[in-house]
Amino acid sequence: MVQTTIVQLDNYGPWTVTPKPRLESSILSFQSEAYAFLVNAFAMYDSLTLNFRQDTFLVLSSGVSIAQHRRIQTAFNDRYAVSTSMAISRDSNPYLAQIKATKLLHAAGSAQDPSRLETLVFDFKAGTADNEAVQIGHFDLNNITQTHTDKESAYDVHQYILQAQTALTNKLAYYNGTKIMLFFIGGDNFVSLTTGKTSDFFQGIIDDLLEEGFDFKVGVGNSTHSLFAMDKANRALEKIRNESDSNKVIFIR
Amino acid sequence: MVQTTIVQLDNYGPWTVTPKPRLESSILSFQSEAYAFLVNAFAMYDSLTLNFRQDTFLVLSSGVSIAQHRRIQTAFNDRYAVSTSMAISRDSNPYLAQIKATKLLHAAGSAQDPSRLETLVFDFKAGTADNEAVQIGHFDLNNITQTHTDKESAYDVHQYILQAQTALTNKLAYYNGTKIMLFFIGGDNFVSLTTGKTSDFFQGIIDDLLEEGFDFKVGVGNSTHSLFAMDKANRALEKIRNESDSNKVIFIR
Amino acid sequence: MVQTTIVQLDNYGPWTVTPKPRLESSILSFQSEAYAFLVNAFAMYDSLTLNFRQDTFLVLSSGVSIAQHRRIQTAFNDRYAVSTSMAISRDSNPYLAQIKATKLLHAAGSAQDPSRLETLVFDFKAGTADNEAVQIGHFDLNNITQTHTDKESAYDVHQYILQAQTALTNKLAYYNGTKIMLFFIGGDNFVSLTTGKTSDFFQGIIDDLLEEGFDFKVGVGNSTHSLFAMDKANRALEKIRNESDSNKVIFIR
Amino acid sequence: MVQTTIVQLDNYGPWTVTPKPRLESSILSFQSEAYAFLVNAFAMYDSLTLNFRQDTFLVLSSGVSIAQHRRIQTAFNDRYAVSTSMAISRDSNPYLAQIKATKLLHAAGSAQDPSRLETLVFDFKAGTADNEAVQIGHFDLNNITQTHTDKESAYDVHQYILQAQTALTNKLAYYNGTKIMLFFIGGDNFVSLTTGKTSDFFQGIIDDLLEEGFDFKVGVGNSTHSLFAMDKANRALEKIRNESDSNKVIFIR
Repeated sequence: MVQTTIVQLDNYGPWTVTPKPRLESSILSFQSEAYAFLVNAFAMYDSLTLNFRQDTFLVLSSGVSIAQHRRIQTAFNDRYAVSTSMAISRDSNPYLAQIKATKLLHAAGSAQDPSRLETLVFDFKAGTADNEAVQIGHFDLNNITQTHTDKESAYDVHQYILQAQTALTNKLAYYNGTKIMLFFIGGDNFVSLTTGKTSDFFQGIIDDLLEEGFDFKVGVGNSTHSLFAMDKANRALEKIRNESDSNKVIFIR
Repeated sequence: MVQTTIVQLDNYGPWTVTPKPRLESSILSFQSEAYAFLVNAFAMYDSLTLNFRQDTFLVLSSGVSIAQHRRIQTAFNDRYAVSTSMAISRDSNPYLAQIKATKLLHAAGSAQDPSRLETLVFDFKAGTADNEAVQIGHFDLNNITQTHTDKESAYDVHQYILQAQTALTNKLAYYNGTKIMLFFIGGDNFVSLTTGKTSDFFQGIIDDLLEEGFDFKVGVGNSTHSLFAMDKANRALEKIRNESDSNKVIFIR
Repeated sequence: MVQTTIVQLDNYGPWTVTPKPRLESSILSFQSEAYAFLVNAFAMYDSLTLNFRQDTFLVLSSGVSIAQHRRIQTAFNDRYAVSTSMAISRDSNPYLAQIKATKLLHAAGSAQDPSRLETLVFDFKAGTADNEAVQIGHFDLNNITQTHTDKESAYDVHQYILQAQTALTNKLAYYNGTKIMLFFIGGDNFVSLTTGKTSDFFQGIIDDLLEEGFDFKVGVGNSTHSLFAMDKANRALEKIRNESDSNKVIFIR
Repeated sequence: MVQTTIVQLDNYGPWTVTPKPRLESSILSFQSEAYAFLVNAFAMYDSLTLNFRQDTFLVLSSGVSIAQHRRIQTAFNDRYAVSTSMAISRDSNPYLAQIKATKLLHAAGSAQDPSRLETLVFDFKAGTADNEAVQIGHFDLNNITQTHTDKESAYDVHQYILQAQTALTNKLAYYNGTKIMLFFIGGDNFVSLTTGKTSDFFQGIIDDLLEEGFDFKVGVGNSTHSLFAMDKANRALEKIRNESDSNKVIFIR
């Protein structure tokens, strides 16, 4: 079982326009700093926090206790003008785990329900272990600096990466009958979340993408603790860069 | 003429893996805080900073002097482990302005050139005025909380918004012969950058999108100062929400 | 005339214990980040923000318009759970300027008045110039790393610097019939605020302090814009360090 | 035994003037955010971080493992332009514990030794328990808002609180033959660190201070985890405020 946590800003849309629309700069900087705060806090418990859409976040939270979740939630809610709610659930499939977590959150109230504040819900016995390794695939476009960043306008590069993200997201939405989540993490970097896959599985994905015109490499790492899985994936990717810098998979277990 | 500034983190990719891959949490929190810093700094000069891909940013910088750019650059470079370069250019078309700015940056060196550090380049006479109004269109999906956020899993909502972004980006890439830039700003919110368009122009865009299955409203604002243009767009959008909350345009000049 | 601004967190004491005492870590990190935000924002207008007691701040705000103050205030109040009030006043003597500013704030309500929120008050005609240079003296203890930091326990160094601060504060409270404000800015560094003094004046102060057993150097800078005055003081101090590193004054005008 | 950690910014003085003096606003905001980062990080492990002089910090780190220290250190050093060194030691007396920790740090190199970077030293067997409760006394001046904040100028209040800090620091430097550390935490608030004292001990301190003209109350809490000890102290103080708001001690064990 892999544990996932959905963190959602409470009643955030209404806050941005109450009592009148706030300065966009205030909204943009608030949500960026809120994410940074969560990233740093969960990192203290060896967990990786990914950004859905600036107002909702996914934590790969295996090994983080309920009490530790409460500590982060209290620290966040104490500090900021907007509070968070959290829902925690587990499944061997991370995509299914976040479905369960989202359902728990929905059962607690709407994202824009002014009375659903500072909720913390979970659907397992607190204290029970959850120790299946999560696999993180770190995808990166080969030679993007040479082929795009240093050649095209900033917006055209941006648009190209959006196309690559869309292609990769669509591929993973239907790959081998399993839906796999994909997240953008900056630059030309993406992460996928799986359990129990092989190097060949990842090679298959990037081979398919190459046929569609997107030239990816992928480093894969796995660990019960998602920050360590990510670290292994980063080291695997760096190994490919240093060796061939080509359409390849390295998997560090 | 509208002034745009490209801000790029210097030699950022190499930094993330030197001397060995940094913790992903450090990278993610750094780049979010770096963006927040730039947003807040340019806001002091009434300008809006948009996020390309976490390592490159677009500022709608009309009215911000070269000296003020240097102040922000010095403040940033003084503070952070990674420095920034900036390129400033102008055109009546914001998309073309950022092409010129990117070319200036390319001429100064590669994004991964370890000797291209703390560059500030521009292609006009310092001190000259630039006072054409920029138009900001603030697009938002109608009833997303009811139709998606409170119904589907967090990842499925994320994927849906990515589809909406792709559809809108593609529409604006070829709309009426002009390429128009589109940025995601969190939640289900996007901004487009134009000059000299009418309400009908924007209504045409969202009508087309509705046929493709994406139900948008759009508030438009214009001003020489981009933060004020954004503020008008936000107020226009809020007006639609309060009136009909439907597939409509309001333009506050 | 030198312009000063008092920035005060609104109803801050009560907030820290409502609805129950917040985690001390939340309070400590909030107030540090609030100060950093103000420092960065006023720096965009070439002004220096000093820290009274974490909940009240002094800005040497000559040259910062009322509109610019409002921009900072709006940006702050939009973002944080606690808002700020500001009072601006002018006098040729910075100490007297802050007395006037504080009185304006008192007239608007108590620091713990829940209805005194987001106030901005000033006692001069908006738009009028204020262009007397402020002098910033940057005091630093000679050889503190060798004599204390690397020898004594961290707390004993801390206590020694508190003694030095007290001695310097007391000296400036009664020096030559004028009261001069002194601020601690980290490490073994202090700044004093004056107008119209000479190098001899500052030499007199550190000579007196040397007799009391505290061995200071001081760099002095002056400018209408306080951040530039500070910068000159820093360069002056660095010049002393590089030349003799002794009980001396350098004044960069 | 109480565990304490000294965290020191590495070679910080030289950094502030290399290659030339940095903008003071950059220095002030950096050091405030660095402290906030450490406060938030150690809070995730239930520990309280106190600020010596902006460049050196004391953590009451009982219960924080060596691996957790490394996690915080890596996260900090990854993120910021300046790195930190840490030294950890234990003693039943917190003052003596920080003396031992400082000595470890001195043995590793000078605060301004460019080769003493990212050090982590400790003088006990990793993995061994340290479970004596630390006592935190939270001192606060009675009625300061009425008697000073709302009456006197901001600087005069500042100076008054400095006097109160000096009086309290001196009292605790020689109280009953033990040296007790005192820290300022903002507003009119101070914390003392002890083990094994009684309510009478604290009442004796504030009675003595009252004779010197400073009217304090003090809430005391104790716990192995310093953040919880602080929380109890805060609740004790709030209880005094709600009951009599007078020169009194409440101790929550």
